[in-house]
Amino acid sequence: MAETSRLQAFSDGIFTIAITLLILDIRLPQNVPGGGLAGALLNLWPSYLAFVTSFWTIGVMWINHHRLFRLIKRADEGLVAINLFLLLLVSWISFPTALLAQHLRGPDERIAAIVYSGTFVAIALVFNVLWWYARRGGHTDEPEHPITRQYKYGPVFYLILLAVGVFNATACLALSTLLAVYFALPPRKAAA
Amino acid sequence: MAETSRLQAFSDGIFTIAITLLILDIRLPQNVPGGGLAGALLNLWPSYLAFVTSFWTIGVMWINHHRLFRLIKRADEGLVAINLFLLLLVSWISFPTALLAQHLRGPDERIAAIVYSGTFVAIALVFNVLWWYARRGGHTDEPEHPITRQYKYGPVFYLILLAVGVFNATACLALSTLLAVYFALPPRKAAA
Amino acid sequence: MAETSRLQAFSDGIFTIAITLLILDIRLPQNVPGGGLAGALLNLWPSYLAFVTSFWTIGVMWINHHRLFRLIKRADEGLVAINLFLLLLVSWISFPTALLAQHLRGPDERIAAIVYSGTFVAIALVFNVLWWYARRGGHTDEPEHPITRQYKYGPVFYLILLAVGVFNATACLALSTLLAVYFALPPRKAAA
Amino acid sequence: MAETSRLQAFSDGIFTIAITLLILDIRLPQNVPGGGLAGALLNLWPSYLAFVTSFWTIGVMWINHHRLFRLIKRADEGLVAINLFLLLLVSWISFPTALLAQHLRGPDERIAAIVYSGTFVAIALVFNVLWWYARRGGHTDEPEHPITRQYKYGPVFYLILLAVGVFNATACLALSTLLAVYFALPPRKAAA
Repeated sequence: MAETSRLQAFSDGIFTIAITLLILDIRLPQNVPGGGLAGALLNLWPSYLAFVTSFWTIGVMWINHHRLFRLIKRADEGLVAINLFLLLLVSWISFPTALLAQHLRGPDERIAAIVYSGTFVAIALVFNVLWWYARRGGHTDEPEHPITRQYKYGPVFYLILLAVGVFNATACLALSTLLAVYFALPPRKAAA
Repeated sequence: MAETSRLQAFSDGIFTIAITLLILDIRLPQNVPGGGLAGALLNLWPSYLAFVTSFWTIGVMWINHHRLFRLIKRADEGLVAINLFLLLLVSWISFPTALLAQHLRGPDERIAAIVYSGTFVAIALVFNVLWWYARRGGHTDEPEHPITRQYKYGPVFYLILLAVGVFNATACLALSTLLAVYFALPPRKAAA
Repeated sequence: MAETSRLQAFSDGIFTIAITLLILDIRLPQNVPGGGLAGALLNLWPSYLAFVTSFWTIGVMWINHHRLFRLIKRADEGLVAINLFLLLLVSWISFPTALLAQHLRGPDERIAAIVYSGTFVAIALVFNVLWWYARRGGHTDEPEHPITRQYKYGPVFYLILLAVGVFNATACLALSTLLAVYFALPPRKAAA
Repeated sequence: MAETSRLQAFSDGIFTIAITLLILDIRLPQNVPGGGLAGALLNLWPSYLAFVTSFWTIGVMWINHHRLFRLIKRADEGLVAINLFLLLLVSWISFPTALLAQHLRGPDERIAAIVYSGTFVAIALVFNVLWWYARRGGHTDEPEHPITRQYKYGPVFYLILLAVGVFNATACLALSTLLAVYFALPPRKAAA
């Protein structure tokens, strides 16, 4: 697999499906008494918040994946394997999203927040491994691209997110939206 | 992200999956007594109607997205973000569709109709924001394309739809099919 | 929308998702007593049969759609609309498939078989309308292609299937597999 | 269908959707008493293990499908049909995966393991049939490619896996991950 176009198409497909499946985790309120639908819908706010946060986060991951694969020109088995593991984690996001939505404001919300932010720590690490592997193995012609610097902060930021989740699940969810905005921005060149 | 082809492919993917997932919201009738299946299937008519309306509407949104991105030649982070928010709303449609199907002819049908048509108001607004952003930022070579005029009416029409929904949910569903037909038509040039 | 490549990609996407979602209709047997799993799995045979038949049928429809769109060179709004209606019916197949699987060998199996085969009658008709529209409107350069003749038989064959379903649901399911084989074959030229 | 690019795109689509739908089989723990979420999540380990194994296995199948279709240059109806049957089995994987996850460590785990590994035996056989058909019918310009040798071992290896499953379901799951690693490796040339 010398060229990366079909690998990109496969990855794009998984990002696209994973992001669209998120809506399946918002369940219709059941057995609502007549006149109670508006209230029942408002009570679902943790589901809406988790949906928007995860949708946005996967979208930003897709943008970053796109950026990486404009730099990565050559694939080999190792790169395919790391990328497959990254995609596994991306499609996994649906599970902690639904978990957090179900438990936010409940007694176990911090467990749910840890699983949720822990997933993002893992993904930030694998993005770094992927880029490190590509730079080291000569898969890119721009090993010193400023993306290196931006990515280095990823696992650190998401570990902070996880630490926040240990204390407050709602703050964790809000902060993860901010992080997604940060990674949506294009990497800046180091001041030189 | 200077060229828009991968952005289009990603958007197409989400439109395609969102439209195909709609069928999952039609649930098989359960615990039907022997001989009662025909009646149980007929009783599902709100689900069929909501399915057809939303399928058609998403299809027309896809056509319009297609039209827009034939005019938009250059993307930047802002355009990607607005487009991502548009796609979030498109994949969200499945939820109010199922909601309306479940509550049509029930005591809370107007709440459901408001959520349903409110979604379309939001989408019509975001389509306008996307096109406004593209015209203003020089992302298109045809800022005076007649699509501008057709789109301007979108939020107005859908606000009328929402107002109808406050009074009658079935009329709201019927009217939203008509609106989808209107937006399926190609934009006409202003008489000049 | 002068060229058909993006229309084809959209259609392919819906065929692909609709065919893959079929597996979601096979539900795991629940509350199986220890030692009873093998029997419970065997009892699901109507689900397997319906899954295989519908998977094969959608696959063959995809092949036929592919054949048609090698002949159709130019699209317009009417063609897009007919095609969208065809795709609506394709994504709908999942519902009668699950219905037939649930009711095969039950008291309402013939109702389920009628809905199942009725869906295929409708699809065969819309395939004919699509091709008739393309021929009539100059969307194809080969209006006399032998596919015309093969398609003409489609609605007739599927009406026979429906008639069989009125009497025997299992025979209807078996026969629809045979029909899918017939339409998998390339159209033969009329003896000339 | 003389060229294989659209056939590949269709196949890629089904692989991509089938792999992403796997996450839907991991169900949130329900009715968890306050403070019990961590334990309930840990108890789901068979679901996580089955998810990772099947995700990885489908990913490797996709890589192999990709390799095959770089060798296969020409399609005909037979090849399309065999490929469709292969895709049917790929989308089927979701069912035995959920089955094994549900029954691992239960009284019927070996039945579930046999269905799971039996699916892989069938897929390994169909990969061989596909490649045999392509070599025999002149669909490839490299009939003596070393992939022939690697594939020949597939059904044998998976039959061993099935035999292991008859005795121990967990070992069967672990071994199937090892097999996926083996088939991820590129085929080696015979020593010559």
